[in-house]
Amino acid sequence: MSQKAIYFHAGCDVCRGAEERLVDAFDPEILNIERVDLRFDKARIAEAEKIGIKSVPAVVIGESVHHINCGATIEDLKQGGA
Amino acid sequence: MSQKAIYFHAGCDVCRGAEERLVDAFDPEILNIERVDLRFDKARIAEAEKIGIKSVPAVVIGESVHHINCGATIEDLKQGGA
Repeated sequence: MSQKAIYFHAGCDVCRGAEERLVDAFDPEILNIERVDLRFDKARIAEAEKIGIKSVPAVVIGESVHHINCGATIEDLKQGGA
Repeated sequence: MSQKAIYFHAGCDVCRGAEERLVDAFDPEILNIERVDLRFDKARIAEAEKIGIKSVPAVVIGESVHHINCGATIEDLKQGGA
């Protein structure tokens, strides 16, 4: 059974690049990836912050946060930027 | 045919965590991952730096560098640390 993972992003160039090259390369039999665009799903910004996400793009696997480069900070997203 | 990718790391906790959760989840039919431990393969530190790697762990896919969190900087590795 694949493990649940969440890809938080904000649709920026850095996020799209990471998604196309890295997230799309995951084996769905190992990781079951939910993709969350925080520009449109603002209700989940608080969830992302609580998990420990400081910036996007980020992949959460289990309780571990993996920040990938930095497209936008959570603070930027709270203020409607990015 | 899978695309070549390189996982540069330094064997630290951050690197091992990223490798186990994220790198091991790549589909080998999409990415053909070479794993390089810069603690032991010091000759490749210059290569990593030339590619644009500032810290490890990092995954290079094509010409794109994806820094994942930060376990050790290239400067630390040059000085034999990490």
